[in-house]
Amino acid sequence: MIIVMKPKTEKEKIEKIKNKMVSLGCGIHESKGENYHLIGLVGDTSRIDRSQIQANRSVEKVIIVQEPYKKANRLFHPQETVVKIGNKEIGGNRFSVIAGPCSVESEEQIVGIAEEIKKSGASFLRGGAYKPRTSPYSFQGLRDEGLELLKIAREKTDLPIVTELMSPHKIEKFVEDVDVIQIGARNMQNFDLLKEIGKTDKPILLKRGMSATIEELLMAAEYIMSEGNEKVILCERGIRTFEKYTRNTLDLSAIPVIKKYSHLPVIVDPSHAGGLWWLVEPLAKAALVAGADGLMVEVHNDPANAKCDGEQSIKPERFKSLMDKLKKLGKIENREV
Amino acid sequence: MIIVMKPKTEKEKIEKIKNKMVSLGCGIHESKGENYHLIGLVGDTSRIDRSQIQANRSVEKVIIVQEPYKKANRLFHPQETVVKIGNKEIGGNRFSVIAGPCSVESEEQIVGIAEEIKKSGASFLRGGAYKPRTSPYSFQGLRDEGLELLKIAREKTDLPIVTELMSPHKIEKFVEDVDVIQIGARNMQNFDLLKEIGKTDKPILLKRGMSATIEELLMAAEYIMSEGNEKVILCERGIRTFEKYTRNTLDLSAIPVIKKYSHLPVIVDPSHAGGLWWLVEPLAKAALVAGADGLMVEVHNDPANAKCDGEQSIKPERFKSLMDKLKKLGKIENREV
Amino acid sequence: MIIVMKPKTEKEKIEKIKNKMVSLGCGIHESKGENYHLIGLVGDTSRIDRSQIQANRSVEKVIIVQEPYKKANRLFHPQETVVKIGNKEIGGNRFSVIAGPCSVESEEQIVGIAEEIKKSGASFLRGGAYKPRTSPYSFQGLRDEGLELLKIAREKTDLPIVTELMSPHKIEKFVEDVDVIQIGARNMQNFDLLKEIGKTDKPILLKRGMSATIEELLMAAEYIMSEGNEKVILCERGIRTFEKYTRNTLDLSAIPVIKKYSHLPVIVDPSHAGGLWWLVEPLAKAALVAGADGLMVEVHNDPANAKCDGEQSIKPERFKSLMDKLKKLGKIENREV
Amino acid sequence: MIIVMKPKTEKEKIEKIKNKMVSLGCGIHESKGENYHLIGLVGDTSRIDRSQIQANRSVEKVIIVQEPYKKANRLFHPQETVVKIGNKEIGGNRFSVIAGPCSVESEEQIVGIAEEIKKSGASFLRGGAYKPRTSPYSFQGLRDEGLELLKIAREKTDLPIVTELMSPHKIEKFVEDVDVIQIGARNMQNFDLLKEIGKTDKPILLKRGMSATIEELLMAAEYIMSEGNEKVILCERGIRTFEKYTRNTLDLSAIPVIKKYSHLPVIVDPSHAGGLWWLVEPLAKAALVAGADGLMVEVHNDPANAKCDGEQSIKPERFKSLMDKLKKLGKIENREV
Repeated sequence: MIIVMKPKTEKEKIEKIKNKMVSLGCGIHESKGENYHLIGLVGDTSRIDRSQIQANRSVEKVIIVQEPYKKANRLFHPQETVVKIGNKEIGGNRFSVIAGPCSVESEEQIVGIAEEIKKSGASFLRGGAYKPRTSPYSFQGLRDEGLELLKIAREKTDLPIVTELMSPHKIEKFVEDVDVIQIGARNMQNFDLLKEIGKTDKPILLKRGMSATIEELLMAAEYIMSEGNEKVILCERGIRTFEKYTRNTLDLSAIPVIKKYSHLPVIVDPSHAGGLWWLVEPLAKAALVAGADGLMVEVHNDPANAKCDGEQSIKPERFKSLMDKLKKLGKIENREV
Repeated sequence: MIIVMKPKTEKEKIEKIKNKMVSLGCGIHESKGENYHLIGLVGDTSRIDRSQIQANRSVEKVIIVQEPYKKANRLFHPQETVVKIGNKEIGGNRFSVIAGPCSVESEEQIVGIAEEIKKSGASFLRGGAYKPRTSPYSFQGLRDEGLELLKIAREKTDLPIVTELMSPHKIEKFVEDVDVIQIGARNMQNFDLLKEIGKTDKPILLKRGMSATIEELLMAAEYIMSEGNEKVILCERGIRTFEKYTRNTLDLSAIPVIKKYSHLPVIVDPSHAGGLWWLVEPLAKAALVAGADGLMVEVHNDPANAKCDGEQSIKPERFKSLMDKLKKLGKIENREV
Repeated sequence: MIIVMKPKTEKEKIEKIKNKMVSLGCGIHESKGENYHLIGLVGDTSRIDRSQIQANRSVEKVIIVQEPYKKANRLFHPQETVVKIGNKEIGGNRFSVIAGPCSVESEEQIVGIAEEIKKSGASFLRGGAYKPRTSPYSFQGLRDEGLELLKIAREKTDLPIVTELMSPHKIEKFVEDVDVIQIGARNMQNFDLLKEIGKTDKPILLKRGMSATIEELLMAAEYIMSEGNEKVILCERGIRTFEKYTRNTLDLSAIPVIKKYSHLPVIVDPSHAGGLWWLVEPLAKAALVAGADGLMVEVHNDPANAKCDGEQSIKPERFKSLMDKLKKLGKIENREV
Repeated sequence: MIIVMKPKTEKEKIEKIKNKMVSLGCGIHESKGENYHLIGLVGDTSRIDRSQIQANRSVEKVIIVQEPYKKANRLFHPQETVVKIGNKEIGGNRFSVIAGPCSVESEEQIVGIAEEIKKSGASFLRGGAYKPRTSPYSFQGLRDEGLELLKIAREKTDLPIVTELMSPHKIEKFVEDVDVIQIGARNMQNFDLLKEIGKTDKPILLKRGMSATIEELLMAAEYIMSEGNEKVILCERGIRTFEKYTRNTLDLSAIPVIKKYSHLPVIVDPSHAGGLWWLVEPLAKAALVAGADGLMVEVHNDPANAKCDGEQSIKPERFKSLMDKLKKLGKIENREV
């Protein structure tokens, strides 16, 4: 951390700040330029509050050198994390595919889709039971009943289930019933929820917030990890930009960037990223060659009658064809699909 | 709602969609252009799910004509809403000021600040007990103890208290202890929390999400209102832009725009908007002349030692001087400050 | 400038960079933290190319401490700049208003509007002769004829004229005919054009690019100033955000921020910022109380038949009423309107 | 185009607008909903100015149904465009690679790089002679001398040359000397420049503006095409987002989206998109599998001493290895690399 003092700050004010920093346990390195006087802090500064220093009226700005995340930081944990889910894994050499409908609608629907995606090579079943919808008047999911139907689909196909948790009231139930707990984009900074799931030992699928930076995503992971749960899988699902033809803009560079700065696995959701079924295939293929650890894809047997997100869901036949293409690419990229 | 069919769609596919829309209770108006065939839906379409129609592979796009919010919509509720809080109000001719520290730190601090701001003309006391911080290693607020201190300050000054709720677990306590429940920017789309506070009858201060559109803010208000609680006060607190000199960018046009489309009162938070204490005064004055119903301002007796957000807090003396300027402007603008 | 070396960089690589920096004339200050090794550069670093240093594979990142602009920087030029235009000025205590139609349409139109706005207190006449339109099929302005009509309006009203230059081919003509040369948002980083007008001594009105940061705006001003022309007036005209109800989002904090970092005058264009005529008044008033040096407002006698931007133009009567309100506010703010 | 009238607009005002539209040559289709009265325009509306209608105070909003571009629109030109450059092509089945340094620095440098990239399979040589730099104090390119050096490199390698034009003054020279004229991101809406190059018959490489939507990119292409030059190649080069680890965010979905709405070829610039050399490979591979027509890659023999953009340039060896990987992917994707 580097403190830039305002031009022409009096000596005693500089001394006061230096003393305070020393009292907080930091080493000090000074550098006096023509206009600016810099105070570099040495040592572990991750517990020092930037905004508190910035509040000093003689401080021009505070520059962070070290990333603010620790447990999620590759610098302190060079080995890649592989998250185990039953006898399956996310991370490592395997390219894992999670697939299923936006929302669970009926036993027939969810079991049917689960069987189809399993045949095509998916490793996990997704399906929304509790749905975060922009409008209170839209379908909100089958809720508890949806969870029960997911469990039936798991029993019949042996696919672990991934579903979104929206409220701390349901954590106990999710821990019992679900294999991977998903935290949606809108709750990425619902810090209370993050802390509470951090106290469980369930694998967490953490989606990037709609306008979140990668640093903020990693800080959200840090919230979970700081409570003890290190089984965090990150998910890039598109960010909001000015582009209007697509729902969001897939930030593909997030994959190599996260791989560089963190040891956590990262997957891509091409369905939400583009918001259009015909974008799923090109974006999914791009995710594989860019180094993602897997995908989360919306598959629906009857998109035109889906209760949500039909325009971005692909049919099981198209999913099969996508998996075939991914397998071919996987061979070139030395990834097991 | 207008459905634009893909160019060259077969007649029977168009008929199928038309029949489906009629079966959902809509009237139909068709218009055939050179390239596009349009189907206009007449009647109450607010319960029709746009994404479901868009999922139809013959549909090019779906255009929404009517705003998706109903209870928050001025069209159906032309009278301005005034929210009553004890013997005070937000909305109407009065320009109300909420002030106080980012976080409650001690009895002495919160009571001291409360007394000062009251003298200068503030009507409400704010103070964070539970704090949503980007880092799990930053100060998280005094939590329950903070609430107790706020209650002491209220007792001593008679100022109603405004504080942020982060978790549904605490709703009962907040309903009992607090005068206005604040929902922070990061929880603007925490739909479960919105629904639960919608079941109380406490006034709600709903802050705009960091990258939320005004429509999304009004839809979040709609979530609360659809559960029965219509005492919603909106708060513009700056949105994320590419600008780096400021923490966020105050969207001042949000005030007249919200006034046009909604009947709910709207206040401005100049402290979070700019993130810099020296921006508070110009932005606060601008908010008044642009028609806001009030302000929420961070005031701290010792910003350089504040436990959070010190760089955007002003001291009580400066707050007094700000209030004096606002009173002068209020006279010109026929607003009671 | 601070160079952050990658963790675990070998000593000799660090030495190599240090030597290079010394050879470029910089002083060096080192600081070794637990993980990062920092090299601080002392002296005038404004001519050192950050990207060149960043290209070194051992460099983690380069942090700029000092603002990259010099001539536009208040640090080196503490006195506020006042730009003289004939016997008028922009900057200083006066709040100057530029008004007129989006585009010049006829002699009757431009002279009529010029007379009306002059009566209401405007100091300058604006009017587009060459128009940058998003579509090649939209009205492109009367071009040379438009300039002639502006000159007639100036002759009749004595108002200096402000109009947009789009091409270097026309510079000579503009220098002769026009009082203030406007550079539009889309050309803010048309560096060739900036350099060429930098060689003239005409006052320049430089509009902020649609997604430009304030630093980029000041760097664009620096381009003009580095060629010798220091008569630059900046114009905040709204930036692109995700908000859809308004054309752009006025960044009002840009005014105090620019005033802090630069000595150049800054005005506000409330017409383009909101894109809606009913937003002009609240935004114009907000600009005044936030400290702007003036306004640029679109006024049209018949907005519904204007050849461009009619939806954001106000009629002369409304302009008069706006000026009256601004004069009242000016008295409180000690500004001469 | 659909005109939405304000709620409760008087009949005569609606009639007036209808008559005006009919007088402009449009057919009319009306639809009366509960709250809104809609007027649909039938026929060619591309020459009707949306903003002019919106200026009518009784109009709530105007909705565009048809894309505003015509010559660039796939709807009217279903066949894919292939741009011929000498005996080479961009578009069609071939995946073409343009490579070379950010800026031309010396004969040895440009000829050396040209030879290396040719050996590895590049089809075109890029190199900046006139450089658009953010700071007037940064290296501005060798200018005319740079062009001469590019011509020497072309002579020695037979690679067609691609370089950026910044000013209309140089068009004649570029038409004579250069094979593909590049228009940079900052000049994407420099409409005068677009019109002037539209009058030549040189192939144009048009880069997407930093915050431009795809529609705006296609409208910029339309400017060129409307003057007669239809040899336009589009280039996705990353857009500005809130992400700070990367220079820009590559919008990969732009490729399939452009392919759907336009017939023009589209290539990707992975160097500017990420701004970091280690992102070039994953983004380049992703571009190929997502369907791009080619790449533009920065290659430099000595990035750490490059005069610009060294941190995003790859060395010739790494370029060779990238080309080998692209060739393997090309086989799977049935693209000739």
